[in-house]
Amino acid sequence: MNGSVQLPVFKVSGGSLQSGNDILAVEEPLEIRLAYGSPNSLITQNLAVTMRTPGNDEELALGFIFTEGIITRDTDIDRIEHVFTSCSENNQNTIQVILNDGVKPNLLQAERNFYTTSSCGVCGKTSIQAIRTVSSFATEPLDCEPIHPGLISSLPDKLAEQQQLFAATGGLHAAALFNNEGNLIFIREDVGRHNALDKLIGTSLNAKILPLTKSILLLSGRASFELVQKAAMAGIPVIAAVGAPSSLAVSLAKEFGITLIGFLRNNRFNIYSGEERIKIPVYENSY
Amino acid sequence: MNGSVQLPVFKVSGGSLQSGNDILAVEEPLEIRLAYGSPNSLITQNLAVTMRTPGNDEELALGFIFTEGIITRDTDIDRIEHVFTSCSENNQNTIQVILNDGVKPNLLQAERNFYTTSSCGVCGKTSIQAIRTVSSFATEPLDCEPIHPGLISSLPDKLAEQQQLFAATGGLHAAALFNNEGNLIFIREDVGRHNALDKLIGTSLNAKILPLTKSILLLSGRASFELVQKAAMAGIPVIAAVGAPSSLAVSLAKEFGITLIGFLRNNRFNIYSGEERIKIPVYENSY
Repeated sequence: MNGSVQLPVFKVSGGSLQSGNDILAVEEPLEIRLAYGSPNSLITQNLAVTMRTPGNDEELALGFIFTEGIITRDTDIDRIEHVFTSCSENNQNTIQVILNDGVKPNLLQAERNFYTTSSCGVCGKTSIQAIRTVSSFATEPLDCEPIHPGLISSLPDKLAEQQQLFAATGGLHAAALFNNEGNLIFIREDVGRHNALDKLIGTSLNAKILPLTKSILLLSGRASFELVQKAAMAGIPVIAAVGAPSSLAVSLAKEFGITLIGFLRNNRFNIYSGEERIKIPVYENSY
Repeated sequence: MNGSVQLPVFKVSGGSLQSGNDILAVEEPLEIRLAYGSPNSLITQNLAVTMRTPGNDEELALGFIFTEGIITRDTDIDRIEHVFTSCSENNQNTIQVILNDGVKPNLLQAERNFYTTSSCGVCGKTSIQAIRTVSSFATEPLDCEPIHPGLISSLPDKLAEQQQLFAATGGLHAAALFNNEGNLIFIREDVGRHNALDKLIGTSLNAKILPLTKSILLLSGRASFELVQKAAMAGIPVIAAVGAPSSLAVSLAKEFGITLIGFLRNNRFNIYSGEERIKIPVYENSY
């Protein structure tokens, strides 16, 4: 299977040992480069090296430069291609995004959205303000029918059915996009949770369905600040995570009017922000 | 509790709703700066911004600059201190490591150990070679008695007993250091798995117990390439992860002669490399 590899392993169980094989998620570095200017004077710049699971590399690169605010639309891009090198071991680990003639990338954003050189230093508030300035979609008015809690609760099983690499390896994150009827649109997997989401958003950008204002993002793990940031950049109004959110993820979701759900398991979940998008069931009691 | 915060939440369970509070892991950016040169001409450089859970910031900064190869011993450091800024919201999010007079940092390593500008581009092999050149301890001969599998299996419960922030929030990674008798030495928690390990190694460096050649590292989650890299920099010979390892984590562990254990749960585990350090139980059969 693409993205996984079989390796020999010793399996210890109580007092016994078996030798055998195990299927592991592949992790390899991907260097993302940007090329811009004009054909006669092309400027090439290394943007990042990320540890990723090979596969959907073009979508990963596209999603990365979009969610980092370096480009704002897919029409800025001429093409995305692997750069082949003299290395015989692996020549799929460098990818280059070539912008259209004359398009100027916003490279200040490449310093990370949350990085600031202001006198304030770095704080959560600054981070959130920095994102607000570059998000193309998140401040648009959001419009969706309240979603039934049963639909939210049904999403993890739908994800699990499709998460092939995780089923084989037990070692991958997933990001899945659903529409408001709970139908799966795209799913992407990666050893890195940010990469899984970048691949998903890159795929959506390629499919020309941004902003994703009528969709639900499901995350297989925890909801961190950076994942909410990337979702905000794509205009996603509802994020549901199987794991816990962090404090700053909740702050950012509130700031952007995003519905943030956590601990989505076993027919239960917590709503941390934007509860108006969920059809609130019978109110039991406060405690 | 330091590192966590209480927030209001709606708890949905089946068809009912309760409002209440939930305890979340705090996530805030930390900017790590390096200052070096002489008091008369101090050079200051921003190294990284990491999203971390506040607490043990000095150890995090110390562990980071050590595992990245920027300094090789704790005696290179004069002091580590938070830099206070004009921001009224949070002035604990910038930390500065000041090197002793005349100490030259290895800033090429700040470009990330796995990043290379060679004609090879980026590949796993290059990454591993890059680490080999900067690790102070990992190529030393390793010397430890074979460890009983029962000792390995006992570690997750010992971790869980001590993982206070996770117990409260359900949203943190942990890295724990045990000696060869299975006694806990240090545990550190963070929303980022790399940060938890940097805090642990920074704490060990402060305690002047490096290289950690007689110890076992327990990771609460998956074992990625970067976690094995950091462990190798500290001379740790045995890594046990509750979750799955990646392919490149196994390659790196093999290269450095590190014992790598994964899926450590319910009295079972897999050994991916360095099985000679585990007292092999009765051999059942191969399959």
